[in-house]
Amino acid sequence: MPKPIEFWFDFSSPYGYLASHRIGDIAARFGREVLWRPFLIGAVMQRTGSRPLVERNLIGAYAAHDFERFARLLGVPFRLPDPFPVSSVAASRAFYWQEARDPAAAPALARALYAAYFVDGRDISQTSVVVDVAAGGTTTRAEVEAGIQDQAIKDRLREVTDGAAERGIFGSPFVIVDGEAFWGCDRLPQVERWLETGGW
Amino acid sequence: MPKPIEFWFDFSSPYGYLASHRIGDIAARFGREVLWRPFLIGAVMQRTGSRPLVERNLIGAYAAHDFERFARLLGVPFRLPDPFPVSSVAASRAFYWQEARDPAAAPALARALYAAYFVDGRDISQTSVVVDVAAGGTTTRAEVEAGIQDQAIKDRLREVTDGAAERGIFGSPFVIVDGEAFWGCDRLPQVERWLETGGW
Repeated sequence: MPKPIEFWFDFSSPYGYLASHRIGDIAARFGREVLWRPFLIGAVMQRTGSRPLVERNLIGAYAAHDFERFARLLGVPFRLPDPFPVSSVAASRAFYWQEARDPAAAPALARALYAAYFVDGRDISQTSVVVDVAAGGTTTRAEVEAGIQDQAIKDRLREVTDGAAERGIFGSPFVIVDGEAFWGCDRLPQVERWLETGGW
Repeated sequence: MPKPIEFWFDFSSPYGYLASHRIGDIAARFGREVLWRPFLIGAVMQRTGSRPLVERNLIGAYAAHDFERFARLLGVPFRLPDPFPVSSVAASRAFYWQEARDPAAAPALARALYAAYFVDGRDISQTSVVVDVAAGGTTTRAEVEAGIQDQAIKDRLREVTDGAAERGIFGSPFVIVDGEAFWGCDRLPQVERWLETGGW
């Protein structure tokens, strides 16, 4: 079995959201699975000394324009939410709670959380919004709420985020193919080429 | 006549160097000229609060790897110079001196300065190196030296750099097609698409 493609992202990252629409198809073309790995980019940015693009002079205006232009090019629905960016703690905890409970359902939850924020403009930093998205079917709101507050899940997210920084993962999206790291939605064509050729 | 493609770059920027190998061909395919516009990215970074990629924790190691990987993909000779990054003041002044004197010769000088730094590893922050590259044929070393020290050329570079920041140009390479701005060597496929389609 080939190794899964690691897909690292932050739930408040527009480029991570855009890439989330492509990564599954890319992996499937090459018979790969995707390992979805949300992490807290804010915690890693403290180590790299970076700030969110939109908060930076000159770069912020460009980035806001580029998010929308890139989304149109990919044919992905997108609206820059307000507030933006937001904390991705609650959404990330919900993901790891779902993964611990039913790994196969976790990617769909990730996509639903991204859509809630970047399509519907719902503030996924709010636990109540995350619970709205994650509950349903046989899953009760109380179960999701308890999961987000579970100390083991909190620890899990902290470990994942610390582990990302220790492996040099600092951006969103950050894709790892057979140990080779690619930062940015604009690197997905290189990811595809790496998968086709095994490297260059 | 369609407008020229504006190609903004810093002489110490690896991604600017990589893009310099592609921009001429891209423009030619669409019957466009290229307006080469070196500027001092360090001066603009003071406004954006950015620092060079290679000086940033975690990002630096990734960037050094990515420069080389991207160069191999494009088939462009590249070696990360030491020292890196360096001041691009002398190289940029030489460019604008050449442009004032013989505009048609300025792009070739830009390519030669980039090759001196990123292929031959020569420190283009040193005036003597820039003079080595720019002198030859009917151009004497004394003429180049005088040009680099000319107050009108110094003022020109300052005006160009201030003008870049005022227009929201903050990165290298930064390509403008009919008013539409694209930041990064990885956006060149989007530049091509914009030229093909007139936008999306």
